[in-house]
Amino acid sequence: MKAAFYKEKGQFSIGESDLINPGPGEVRLNVAYCGVCGTDIHIFHGVMDKRINPPQIVGHEASAVVAELGEGVDNVEVGDNVAVRPLKFGKPHPFDKGNPHVGKNLKFIGIDSAGAFQKSWTVPAYTLHKLPAQLSLKYGAFIEPLAVACHDVKIGRVKAGENCLVMGGGPIGTLIAFVLREKGANVFISEINESRLQMLADLGFTTINPAMEKLTEKISALTGEAMIDCVFEVSGSAAAVSAMTEVVNVKARIVMVAIHGGEKRPVDLFKFFWSEIELLGARLYQEDDYEEAIRIAASGIIPFDTLITKIDSLENIQSIFEIIDENPDGMKYLIDCQD
Amino acid sequence: MKAAFYKEKGQFSIGESDLINPGPGEVRLNVAYCGVCGTDIHIFHGVMDKRINPPQIVGHEASAVVAELGEGVDNVEVGDNVAVRPLKFGKPHPFDKGNPHVGKNLKFIGIDSAGAFQKSWTVPAYTLHKLPAQLSLKYGAFIEPLAVACHDVKIGRVKAGENCLVMGGGPIGTLIAFVLREKGANVFISEINESRLQMLADLGFTTINPAMEKLTEKISALTGEAMIDCVFEVSGSAAAVSAMTEVVNVKARIVMVAIHGGEKRPVDLFKFFWSEIELLGARLYQEDDYEEAIRIAASGIIPFDTLITKIDSLENIQSIFEIIDENPDGMKYLIDCQD
Repeated sequence: MKAAFYKEKGQFSIGESDLINPGPGEVRLNVAYCGVCGTDIHIFHGVMDKRINPPQIVGHEASAVVAELGEGVDNVEVGDNVAVRPLKFGKPHPFDKGNPHVGKNLKFIGIDSAGAFQKSWTVPAYTLHKLPAQLSLKYGAFIEPLAVACHDVKIGRVKAGENCLVMGGGPIGTLIAFVLREKGANVFISEINESRLQMLADLGFTTINPAMEKLTEKISALTGEAMIDCVFEVSGSAAAVSAMTEVVNVKARIVMVAIHGGEKRPVDLFKFFWSEIELLGARLYQEDDYEEAIRIAASGIIPFDTLITKIDSLENIQSIFEIIDENPDGMKYLIDCQD
Repeated sequence: MKAAFYKEKGQFSIGESDLINPGPGEVRLNVAYCGVCGTDIHIFHGVMDKRINPPQIVGHEASAVVAELGEGVDNVEVGDNVAVRPLKFGKPHPFDKGNPHVGKNLKFIGIDSAGAFQKSWTVPAYTLHKLPAQLSLKYGAFIEPLAVACHDVKIGRVKAGENCLVMGGGPIGTLIAFVLREKGANVFISEINESRLQMLADLGFTTINPAMEKLTEKISALTGEAMIDCVFEVSGSAAAVSAMTEVVNVKARIVMVAIHGGEKRPVDLFKFFWSEIELLGARLYQEDDYEEAIRIAASGIIPFDTLITKIDSLENIQSIFEIIDENPDGMKYLIDCQD
């Protein structure tokens, strides 16, 4: 079956993957669409070569149709449309305290094992969430990143009427903004890319370019000095880490969505003490976040077509990754895995 | 009435303060004992001269006897033993979201206005908490710092059976350890002062000297790799900020008690993301923390006499502050304000 293999830094190749018959508790899928995640870009840049095992099939933002059931599978039927929660849970460890999604023995499908950039994919049945009939498979590929957004907003304990700032208006930041809007929050987005800012403004969000305006002053003016109740740091930039403690009010939450690898960041711990701020790490998603993402996606409030920059075939995956590298304005790129 | 005035860096003088008749809603107190807080030491070092207004009476860890009631006061009676919650609440601001103890217009009595290092002190009646008869006034001077500890543990949402690490075994760290023990937590204390370590070990706590042993390895061994559920960073040191993210498990809380003024600290934000850690700022206390502190103090579980390094008269306040500066082994120093 046709598959895209990450070979080495900057290189995919198209080849054939084995069709894997599902074992007990497994399901074989015909992958429909698979989105390209920032993590896939990191892999393409060669920075995750230690963790993955090239040549490897990557990709994990997938919608699919159930093709074949392994023994004992009863949560889906052949022909069901599904989204995949690409987490393989390992042996529980006392360190995890019942949180396998951030557990010591978690394996991420599409990084630690074969992913979805292929026509046929075999995964554990417990990773599957049924998609409602009215949700197109194209939009179903957004369930994974939308579940990230739902998880982040859940961690942030956002209530209707609260002032929320999303720092970074890429795909995840934008989906967080939509989830926040759905919760009845007042949403502000800070972003420095003018093309993304225009798109976000067109979608009705209040945007701020912190490279052009003083973020803290602008937030103060926009909120009548009440400032921000919940920040989502999605940008990964040092500038955002510096600003995140300046825009918040008393007992505010700052949800750390971005992956600040490498150097430790200077953080204003005094401000945490002074205003009893909370910094809340958020990673991946849990089962209920998927259900919430499917509910929100099916409700029709997210204009997915506006967020899709391009859909292309598995065959053209190399050029898609090259385009993403060259186009900072782009949002979500989908691979049509049956094409 | 006899009073100690902070005059300038390193200098107290003894003089007379006016006896202030209590206005409506105010109470005049005969101050019994007032503890010396780290903040008072900062004032003594001259680093808070911009905020206070020398010559000024400072001190805020007070027990007292009610001497005279202003008009309309009905929460205490003359002769009552009380502890003072030294917070003057200002006009509410949207920024505060109903949290006057960290509000924009909060004034701290003993810093922003005259404190308790004097024989007679007039304060708002709402700052007073009655002390039960069985609690000596000497121990009553611990209610303020004990309320800090109760607030910190409340912010940390500690449950029985959890592994807790207190970083810094000074007066506040030690009181946090006692509150944690009362909640049924497993308490570990890291501290580098050998004299304090000995005292804490004698009090039955499991201690670690991170200058002598590898903290993370030791915690791993002591907890069977389960690591720490809730850290209390009380030391204010960069080393503790570095270690705090290494000793915790998944979804752990790190309560930021220490005042990390000056430079921003490098923080491992990746670890926050990866293990969904929470950093929770904690400042001062609320009404219920005082009630909890009084309940715990009255229960007799805290050996206050062990924690009192020295009690001396108002007259000798200068030498007490000089002794504190020279003696890093000391714990709590009390001023007898009627002596």
